[in-house]
Amino acid sequence: MSKVLSGIRIADFTHVLSGPIATHFLCLMGADVIKIESPEGGDTMRNYGTDQSGMAPPFIAVNAGKRSIALDLKSEAGLESARRLLATCDVVVENFRPGVMDRLGLSHETCRKLNPNIIYCSISGYGQFGELRNNPAIDQIIQSTSGLMSLTGEPSTPPIRIGFPVVDTFTGLLAAFAIMSSLLRRERSGEGQYIDVAMFDAALVMMISILGPYLINGIKPEKQGNRGFSMSPTADTFPTKQGSITLGAVRQEQFERLCKAIGRPDLIADPRYADRKSRIENAGSLRESVIEGLASRTAEEWEPLLNAVSVAAGVVREIPDVAAQSHLTDRHLKLPVAFPGFSLEQVEVLNAGFLFAQDAPGIDRPPPRLGEHTEEIMRELDMPTV
Amino acid sequence: MSKVLSGIRIADFTHVLSGPIATHFLCLMGADVIKIESPEGGDTMRNYGTDQSGMAPPFIAVNAGKRSIALDLKSEAGLESARRLLATCDVVVENFRPGVMDRLGLSHETCRKLNPNIIYCSISGYGQFGELRNNPAIDQIIQSTSGLMSLTGEPSTPPIRIGFPVVDTFTGLLAAFAIMSSLLRRERSGEGQYIDVAMFDAALVMMISILGPYLINGIKPEKQGNRGFSMSPTADTFPTKQGSITLGAVRQEQFERLCKAIGRPDLIADPRYADRKSRIENAGSLRESVIEGLASRTAEEWEPLLNAVSVAAGVVREIPDVAAQSHLTDRHLKLPVAFPGFSLEQVEVLNAGFLFAQDAPGIDRPPPRLGEHTEEIMRELDMPTV
Repeated sequence: MSKVLSGIRIADFTHVLSGPIATHFLCLMGADVIKIESPEGGDTMRNYGTDQSGMAPPFIAVNAGKRSIALDLKSEAGLESARRLLATCDVVVENFRPGVMDRLGLSHETCRKLNPNIIYCSISGYGQFGELRNNPAIDQIIQSTSGLMSLTGEPSTPPIRIGFPVVDTFTGLLAAFAIMSSLLRRERSGEGQYIDVAMFDAALVMMISILGPYLINGIKPEKQGNRGFSMSPTADTFPTKQGSITLGAVRQEQFERLCKAIGRPDLIADPRYADRKSRIENAGSLRESVIEGLASRTAEEWEPLLNAVSVAAGVVREIPDVAAQSHLTDRHLKLPVAFPGFSLEQVEVLNAGFLFAQDAPGIDRPPPRLGEHTEEIMRELDMPTV
Repeated sequence: MSKVLSGIRIADFTHVLSGPIATHFLCLMGADVIKIESPEGGDTMRNYGTDQSGMAPPFIAVNAGKRSIALDLKSEAGLESARRLLATCDVVVENFRPGVMDRLGLSHETCRKLNPNIIYCSISGYGQFGELRNNPAIDQIIQSTSGLMSLTGEPSTPPIRIGFPVVDTFTGLLAAFAIMSSLLRRERSGEGQYIDVAMFDAALVMMISILGPYLINGIKPEKQGNRGFSMSPTADTFPTKQGSITLGAVRQEQFERLCKAIGRPDLIADPRYADRKSRIENAGSLRESVIEGLASRTAEEWEPLLNAVSVAAGVVREIPDVAAQSHLTDRHLKLPVAFPGFSLEQVEVLNAGFLFAQDAPGIDRPPPRLGEHTEEIMRELDMPTV
């Protein structure tokens, strides 16, 4: 068959990040995603910082493959077109503040009258009801209020923001999962669904490995720098002759192999490092010795040497080095998209991050210019083009 | 109808974190998830640090609602039971190192012979093929090699680990999304699927808002501390009289409202802060003035005051304060699960993070003891219990 969502049409009222990421995943699975955008500028992500071209790279990254119809939802004609469009759609996704879709006349109730089996997904900061619903919610704020910022860094450092909008991304994927589940449910039962996704709630679920145990044992989680959950001083990040490397030596035999590999077999017999407990107690001096041992080679040199003796090791890489690896091509992580008229003629966008043996995810169209498909979609709806 | 995945049976060969999180999401949607565990200890996550009870809280958090069958897959009897079980399952999920399922005699090819329409999902560090496939891959290592660690912190600070296993969690949700997509595809076409999910690939997709633009413009992303992407000095995290607060004042009118709210209207007229560009140039002195203004109240006091004048503000909270909020109950984020015989008699586990109007996600059973359902499942398979 063709892609799993081919023939599924999505009315996409979202903007900026969490919503467009949700529909991006659905687009990769073959859905016909139609962005409904205001004729005045459209999705604000089109323009970003000094890039006022309407095709800023962060917009391209999550909107390639979609179509765009420009509609003024505050005019009766625009609203009527939206309603005609909605009657043909399987899914609605929106991420306005709670109440805005109602005021526009596009509430879940209204959409269900137009299309009884519609799947309607609202994404917001704190959800569609409750005392927090009107609080402002950008990624940075949710990282603060959800506890995310309290978990990263050394015990003594102030709270640190995860340096990219991880909440938007996790929320988008979670919404895509909820929508995919609802499409399966509709396939089996014929019924639509209403889905209420909140960035705050998604952030809590993202911390399941921390918040889950806390709900059971009530032990306050503490920041622990770059050490892993074992708290082993040799499961940490270290400087080398050039670059940093993360090691995962926790068990006794891993510790011993590490000591030999870095030319410090003497550490094995040192009573201060005799077992896991004593190593944790003497973490400071052990760390110094490991740093001395690692100083003879670069991180790139150490990585294969240590992995070869079964000491888990990974170079701390920066984005340009990561992106240059052939792995990204071998694993179809980058999708080349022809982009006639854009400065580059072709761009690469990220794929879904998993491989299918059949009907692989992917897209082959550039992101739409604002309103690029207005006439095309109006024709599909048998509506006169304005 | 009942939950979307009721009647769907999943053979769960996963352990520790990414795999169990994938099947946790599917369990919340109603699937019958059967953990196939080694009789010698089972999932290593059952015991964690000093907790050797077999029911460590991090295990409970992602395994409630599942069943457990203890099978020695290295014995012919155990393998035969596994094969009989697989013939009744819709989905297989495994997260061994690449090649282990083959060696056990449970490869995708074998499973497909037992069950032609099976959906088989392998989760690994770097994927099932390619030169990186045998590299060790725990969350901390992937955070290093994927570039994740290079993005968080101040420009001058060394790389910082996100303080919880975010890659495991994102990978688990991504695998759940891929499996849900494949279940819909099977519903429509009758066909099974093979899915190859890699933690490294998932980490790259998680950074789509950074890596996506980089693939287009080639501009190396730099760490920017707690400032948002606007780089506005008033979209940052600040100390207060007590606790820290994150503000999102970017636009001119937001800046002006902030200055008035903190009793520093004089800053508006200061030529150093006349517009966005000059505020970025004079970020240091502006930050000092804002900190002075905020020193009169606590973060908890400032949050409602600032939000009321439409300056986005969020207290940097820690996990205990987050978990205590009624929001978690109001939004069904916590599922109470009776747990007879466990020290608490009842535990709470996190729900899926989204709300459905119909057939809400959830579970109502505790996590299984190792092999708790061996006899029950053997009876279902018409197999003699050993």
